[in-house]
Amino acid sequence: MAACSGDDGNSAAPARQASSAPTASDNENAIDLIVAGKYVVTMDAAGTVIVDGAVAVDDGVILAVGPATDIDAQYVAKERLDSESRVVMPGLINGHSHAAMTLLRGVADDLALMDWLNNYIFPAEVEFVDAEFVRIGTELACWEMIRGGTTTFVDMYYYSDTIAEVVERCGMRALISTTVIGQRSPDAEGAGDGIEKGLAFINRWKDRNSRITPIFGPHANYTLNAEQLQATRAAANQAGVGISIHLSESPYELQYSKDNYGGTSIAFFDSIGFFDGPTIGAHVVWPTADEIPILAERQVGVIHNPTSNMKIASGIAPVTEMLNAGVRVGLGTDGAASNNDLDMWEEMRLASFLQKVDRMDPEALSAETVLTMATRGGAEAIGLAGRTGELRPGLRADLIQVSFDDVHFVPTFDVISHLVFVADEQDVVATVVDGAILMRDGQFLTLDTARIKREATALAARIQQALSERNSGD
Amino acid sequence: MAACSGDDGNSAAPARQASSAPTASDNENAIDLIVAGKYVVTMDAAGTVIVDGAVAVDDGVILAVGPATDIDAQYVAKERLDSESRVVMPGLINGHSHAAMTLLRGVADDLALMDWLNNYIFPAEVEFVDAEFVRIGTELACWEMIRGGTTTFVDMYYYSDTIAEVVERCGMRALISTTVIGQRSPDAEGAGDGIEKGLAFINRWKDRNSRITPIFGPHANYTLNAEQLQATRAAANQAGVGISIHLSESPYELQYSKDNYGGTSIAFFDSIGFFDGPTIGAHVVWPTADEIPILAERQVGVIHNPTSNMKIASGIAPVTEMLNAGVRVGLGTDGAASNNDLDMWEEMRLASFLQKVDRMDPEALSAETVLTMATRGGAEAIGLAGRTGELRPGLRADLIQVSFDDVHFVPTFDVISHLVFVADEQDVVATVVDGAILMRDGQFLTLDTARIKREATALAARIQQALSERNSGD
Repeated sequence: MAACSGDDGNSAAPARQASSAPTASDNENAIDLIVAGKYVVTMDAAGTVIVDGAVAVDDGVILAVGPATDIDAQYVAKERLDSESRVVMPGLINGHSHAAMTLLRGVADDLALMDWLNNYIFPAEVEFVDAEFVRIGTELACWEMIRGGTTTFVDMYYYSDTIAEVVERCGMRALISTTVIGQRSPDAEGAGDGIEKGLAFINRWKDRNSRITPIFGPHANYTLNAEQLQATRAAANQAGVGISIHLSESPYELQYSKDNYGGTSIAFFDSIGFFDGPTIGAHVVWPTADEIPILAERQVGVIHNPTSNMKIASGIAPVTEMLNAGVRVGLGTDGAASNNDLDMWEEMRLASFLQKVDRMDPEALSAETVLTMATRGGAEAIGLAGRTGELRPGLRADLIQVSFDDVHFVPTFDVISHLVFVADEQDVVATVVDGAILMRDGQFLTLDTARIKREATALAARIQQALSERNSGD
Repeated sequence: MAACSGDDGNSAAPARQASSAPTASDNENAIDLIVAGKYVVTMDAAGTVIVDGAVAVDDGVILAVGPATDIDAQYVAKERLDSESRVVMPGLINGHSHAAMTLLRGVADDLALMDWLNNYIFPAEVEFVDAEFVRIGTELACWEMIRGGTTTFVDMYYYSDTIAEVVERCGMRALISTTVIGQRSPDAEGAGDGIEKGLAFINRWKDRNSRITPIFGPHANYTLNAEQLQATRAAANQAGVGISIHLSESPYELQYSKDNYGGTSIAFFDSIGFFDGPTIGAHVVWPTADEIPILAERQVGVIHNPTSNMKIASGIAPVTEMLNAGVRVGLGTDGAASNNDLDMWEEMRLASFLQKVDRMDPEALSAETVLTMATRGGAEAIGLAGRTGELRPGLRADLIQVSFDDVHFVPTFDVISHLVFVADEQDVVATVVDGAILMRDGQFLTLDTARIKREATALAARIQQALSERNSGD
């Protein structure tokens, strides 16, 4: 079983606890964990759902998936997560986030983009974003993601070492990018400095922890010029890592690309060889009909962020067309400053609803399709296919239990429909990553809830004070 | 304090319990209830939010709203709902629902409208909808609405007496309509029979319980002809009650109106005098620019149903334009067969997001506006202004507590933003209607959770069996 390293001294109990089955825990041949449920939704390519099923886990790996009676006949486990009303499924994959921005959750809503950025987000970031901000904000985000059943996330923010340290401690799986941006940022002097620091970060983390994948995060085509974007691609290829970038997000970006590069956004990136290596494009709201085949051909992983795209009015992405063209599409929450939570259940529901009304087609983007986008399809989009995203022997044991006890699941005709159209974060009752239990029955085993809440609240009070003085003054 | 009558013998403990403050409960001059919280969001016209506030309640009425220290200096209460992390606010108003359809939750999703209706919904209704179905389904819906903080709903389904009996027992507030439809239905032979039965229902319930308002529910302009619609209006006016109707919901309805009545839907209704009396129009997705002023002038209450409109691809309603024109707009969930839950928190969030992306304007439909639509504005739309929908002395005590303990509320910069963009049903910890506590800390005081779950599950199994035989046979 993969170790889940402890917190900084304030953390709660470690993930492994005394089992309720003493004979099993005493058995030296016992496997680590059995996770059982009324339905095991494997999200494998065949769409297998096992009624009264179980998953056997040892040393962080899924050993077997099948009927609970078969699993129990074959294995004895030191620990067991069980309940007759629970669904077992792969953990959710949040393909695009700025975790630490959870500290700016709801600081300014219902505002035009430039007012929001210039009078709230940028000033708060300039004044407050340091390693401490990133540590507290990322812990807050991981706390929320673990509670809501997200097991893997792709992050883009500053102080990537701090992010990686938090992820290492709390037990999640993550792709963590060093931000590269063509201006002074909280942790770099400019694009060149960002690339250098990114290479150092990647060297430190590339082989340190199998749950952590360091990557590059060039910000966008309107904050980096063609040369800087090419230099980042070259550095990523040299280091053997991927890239995550904001791609074709807004009408502003599209217009900027036309004005400055003489073409639409994705075509421009392709023309400079930017997709010559693993690439995750976040948002991708405005690909042209000509650009969608480029995304498929170059195997760009697309992350759809419906809440953020709606709330800040970026637009409605052509998810149906991208999927039909063979593009790998996953889902993400974006940061909590434009969401305002990290709830992947909302993203699934919204993704389906938004395509249906946009196409005036109730058959568009079915429950099964969006559940795939949040699991196996998300893993494919971020380059972790065959490692996480489904329940299949040999894959890492990243899985969750969703309780169907709440009234909103009564009656249950179709478990997939309920997971997408009904389930909320608070229905998740257990979260397991790499075989380690991070949350069970609302108890966090790797994060100190009280401390994080206290620290986040104190820091937010300072931010609010500063913004209020700034916006009432001069 | 208004009595909250018991259930059918299976119900849980009555709403009034021994207080934790013995001196208060012993005091014969004590008022019934004080509800306190870190924030009291009154939703009054001035938008008053009281920090560390409380609401004093006696005999079902709000006596006072103010700082907790003032309330406590002035009143002693037999019972107190308290917690330092809770928000106190008016209960939510679900302006359009088909409560009993909760029994068909998720029976068939991601289908084209006609396939959905003809192969799933209609066959299930023809075979299964009787008074027992309606009792169980309405109890299931009330259970979910009480848990999610809805205190008032407007319902349209069959067996209206049964619906009213459930509402009387469970303690909610409701406008309940007798369905009038120009074809044989589960409880009437046709439109004429429906009107007669409606009048009888209204006579039985008009003065029986102040929480229950009987009304007429003519189905739509494509299931009733002009004469039947006019007859329903006349009957409603004769009985002195209002009407709730599906209005300008879909492109189909719009086209039907043009083909059969020679004009768009709302203009046709106006031309036959249908709005000459209190009218609630549900959905209202396709009003023309000429029709919006009619809605304002005739004081038609509009209920926006974003989830249903998106999920079954009806379209995006011009909520912003209607509000700007002075139309009274509330929010609703529609039935759980097209939603799939009765979660007003999702409707608020979606209403805001959908307008923002549709207008490409992040300032559209702010958090404050949609929270008003779900409370005071909803009360105005359904004709209960000055009775419920805000926390103000003299109004009925319909209020809820929302716990801000969950991680997704950390940090809190703006309580209104968090209520709309973050809160879920499961954050509601207390629901009070007419001064009676219906739910506290997840415990239901007027509904028997276990019995309802058991009965709903058993009935759903019969429905699933029948549909599966039907769709696999012939």
